[in-house]
Amino acid sequence: MTQAYQALEERYRRLSLLSETLGILRWDMLVMMPPEGTEARSEQIAALKLLRHDLISDPAVSDYLDQAEENEDLDDWQAANLRRMRRRWLHTTAVPADLVEATSRAITVTETVWRTARIEDDFQTILPHLKDLLALIREVAAVKSIALGMPAYQAMMDLYEPGATTKMVDQLFNDYAEFLPEFLEAVLRCQNAQPAPELPMGPFPVDQQERLCRNLVETIGFDFASGRLDTTSHPFSTGVPEDSRITTRYDEANFMPAIMAAAHETGHAMYERGRPSEWRYQPVGETPGLGMHESQSLIVEMQVSRSRPFFLWAAPKIRSAFDGTGEVWSAENLYRLATRVSRSFIRVDADEVTYPAHVILRYRLERAMIEGDLAAADLPSAWNEGLRALLDVVPPDDRNGCLQDIHWYDGAWGYFPTYTIGAMAAAQIFDSATNADPKIESGIARGNFDALMRWLRKEVHNLGARFSTNELLKQATGRPLDSAAFTKHLKTRYLRDIS
Amino acid sequence: MTQAYQALEERYRRLSLLSETLGILRWDMLVMMPPEGTEARSEQIAALKLLRHDLISDPAVSDYLDQAEENEDLDDWQAANLRRMRRRWLHTTAVPADLVEATSRAITVTETVWRTARIEDDFQTILPHLKDLLALIREVAAVKSIALGMPAYQAMMDLYEPGATTKMVDQLFNDYAEFLPEFLEAVLRCQNAQPAPELPMGPFPVDQQERLCRNLVETIGFDFASGRLDTTSHPFSTGVPEDSRITTRYDEANFMPAIMAAAHETGHAMYERGRPSEWRYQPVGETPGLGMHESQSLIVEMQVSRSRPFFLWAAPKIRSAFDGTGEVWSAENLYRLATRVSRSFIRVDADEVTYPAHVILRYRLERAMIEGDLAAADLPSAWNEGLRALLDVVPPDDRNGCLQDIHWYDGAWGYFPTYTIGAMAAAQIFDSATNADPKIESGIARGNFDALMRWLRKEVHNLGARFSTNELLKQATGRPLDSAAFTKHLKTRYLRDIS
Repeated sequence: MTQAYQALEERYRRLSLLSETLGILRWDMLVMMPPEGTEARSEQIAALKLLRHDLISDPAVSDYLDQAEENEDLDDWQAANLRRMRRRWLHTTAVPADLVEATSRAITVTETVWRTARIEDDFQTILPHLKDLLALIREVAAVKSIALGMPAYQAMMDLYEPGATTKMVDQLFNDYAEFLPEFLEAVLRCQNAQPAPELPMGPFPVDQQERLCRNLVETIGFDFASGRLDTTSHPFSTGVPEDSRITTRYDEANFMPAIMAAAHETGHAMYERGRPSEWRYQPVGETPGLGMHESQSLIVEMQVSRSRPFFLWAAPKIRSAFDGTGEVWSAENLYRLATRVSRSFIRVDADEVTYPAHVILRYRLERAMIEGDLAAADLPSAWNEGLRALLDVVPPDDRNGCLQDIHWYDGAWGYFPTYTIGAMAAAQIFDSATNADPKIESGIARGNFDALMRWLRKEVHNLGARFSTNELLKQATGRPLDSAAFTKHLKTRYLRDIS
Repeated sequence: MTQAYQALEERYRRLSLLSETLGILRWDMLVMMPPEGTEARSEQIAALKLLRHDLISDPAVSDYLDQAEENEDLDDWQAANLRRMRRRWLHTTAVPADLVEATSRAITVTETVWRTARIEDDFQTILPHLKDLLALIREVAAVKSIALGMPAYQAMMDLYEPGATTKMVDQLFNDYAEFLPEFLEAVLRCQNAQPAPELPMGPFPVDQQERLCRNLVETIGFDFASGRLDTTSHPFSTGVPEDSRITTRYDEANFMPAIMAAAHETGHAMYERGRPSEWRYQPVGETPGLGMHESQSLIVEMQVSRSRPFFLWAAPKIRSAFDGTGEVWSAENLYRLATRVSRSFIRVDADEVTYPAHVILRYRLERAMIEGDLAAADLPSAWNEGLRALLDVVPPDDRNGCLQDIHWYDGAWGYFPTYTIGAMAAAQIFDSATNADPKIESGIARGNFDALMRWLRKEVHNLGARFSTNELLKQATGRPLDSAAFTKHLKTRYLRDIS
């Protein structure tokens, strides 16, 4: 280990602590901050981001990276860490300061205008801002493409999903787009051949829902001595291994969204808690990519908490949380409620069968926009045509169409694929886990998640970013990511597994 | 205005944003953070402090300061800002990096050991740590003394109370120490000649107390669109003008502490909200000193909220908040409860008559320790003798004596005088305010604080640190700080004003 490498560890440690601080500022903004604090908070966040940018683009870092790479006296973890450092350095320094600033300013304006435009279903008002922002994003993609030596769209996606190629994503997504239409028809036929599950009659008071959620996440493994559960309109997860912050949302008419969001965010939190502690503040101690992070939340939400074994254990708890009586509280009814499939317009409300279609649509559109094949002005019609082709539905308006998600208006281009990469990885990992240890499935039916978490910790969490997503999957499941386990899971759950 | 000066404004703006971020990290730590987050949070805070230190001790800043001071083309605000910048630079760069680090490490250990030592009333365990820390603090005081060109203790106090001299503080404190014994006897005689006020019978549920506090602080001028009120065991105030965070504590047996702490912290928050917005991120936009900050909280708590006119308005609100009935809820009874005087051991629970004695004791002791006239080992006996001389009581143990306050164990040496400077400034300012505008007192009796806040905003809040504390007092009250208005206020309230 060289002095240069040590200097890099120290520098990236500071970067990591700045990022943790940014996480707290954002959590506070979304969970605690009074409304008039917005502008002051943006200034604080911008100042920290600038400091982080300065710390990494300092010429000394470039020298250290060169020196450290020339030396071969690093162990495997250190070498992986150094690769991660270089990658982050490339992403940061690829973009000139004036372009960073122009983009950041365009994002602030676009995001603000979008909030109103979405509510008022007014694409024309956001269009000029989206055009400006897209032009800047294309510039960013162009310079990153050169710096990283990969196609423009892939260079944007690489920030969230390191190592993922457009070729690989095309393959996964085209397979699924081909599989979906016939399968969806079959699922809906099967579903309609049975009486619809019944939603228990509310209202379900928020404090009772919250108590239930706290119980549930604790059972999964979340520890309130080192975490919080709060309320936001869009559930999310942040924090550090010793202090996880998760949120959920409550609907007094339906308790299911609160439970499922809490389970989902707990999956994220458990992953963070399991990160390799000796690499606590280093890039190699983080996730290999957001798809892997999402896989951990989807294992807990989709693979576990929407399964029949889970409801065998959970149904009595849920019933007693609301003092319910009758068949409507049976495990079977609740399970079928939690696995209801439908064609819909809104991604965040979609079931796991149709969710990938929403992602595939966005992937195709954002890639076409970045590659210059789709103009911002043509987005609404391309959206509607695309959704029709994938799901055979057309949204009634742009609010239910291309205005629904914050991502593009907030500058997160290349992010969407991580959701479906996560869903497929979740199925593939969970399949291997349950094959490797039969106690995992039997545990779930008794509300015991120890075996599952033990396996995930060893095979995934503890490895941080020591391996790439595909390397990790090869070790844990025997093969790189494909859609086979995911479609197998869907067939089992939605065709065969209906009682 | 020169380029150098502009570069300084940009640099100090970044420093200010880092300090705001540190404020949020600390607020979260005390109000929201789960217990196991402590260590991770300390790392985040240390990293931000180091960044702040690096930003100010950068040689470029020294050059800019020299250049800007040579130029005379600055207006009065800019010139005052530059003086504040130099002062902060002096405080930061006076102390060599290794001494900063050693002190910071000693503080972390000492503070941790103190938490247990206080609970267990065990001075001997904390003594070696206190000795080490004191040795380091004396080193810091010595280098600051040279850099600032003032006596060692004064150089420490200057961080909190710029411009205050030991001569001035001696004068104020000796006057009060001389005034107190006979006065206190008279007050207690007067108090004992009357039947004791009666504490309404609880319990007073926390949610009812909280609703009352929220109502009260809103009436004073606090706005929940730009602020929060939360719960902590030690009430405090932080945040930014657009996002004030205040806390209070609830005792189910007695509602008075919650009300008074909320009023106190609202005074701090109103000051922050009134800071000159054009100097939002500059040193001159802050307070001239912590005494002035404390004066604003004590005006609202002591001068206003423990006054008879206040209770004429507030008593019916308080009574109805708890559905109370009977004479015990009368304005007169509540007023007398809120102005009860007694000899006691604990500073934070002391009344306004005896509070300065607690401060004077600490001032004398910390000054003697820094000047080498008192060894850490002799602190308990010096404490007990000192308190006997000032208040004629001796604490039964060190927990009620020299272990009660966190300040020394947490490295805040030279801080204590600001409390009593604040109390005296509050009396002096409030006296001038009520003389200048009779609507202020009549407003208070009707629960209308507009006239008071208008006057304070113009004469104090809006001026930031444009003037020193004494300059500001001269303009607002006609003379620099003295103890006359404070003793006059005490005589009126505690001897003449008893009905």
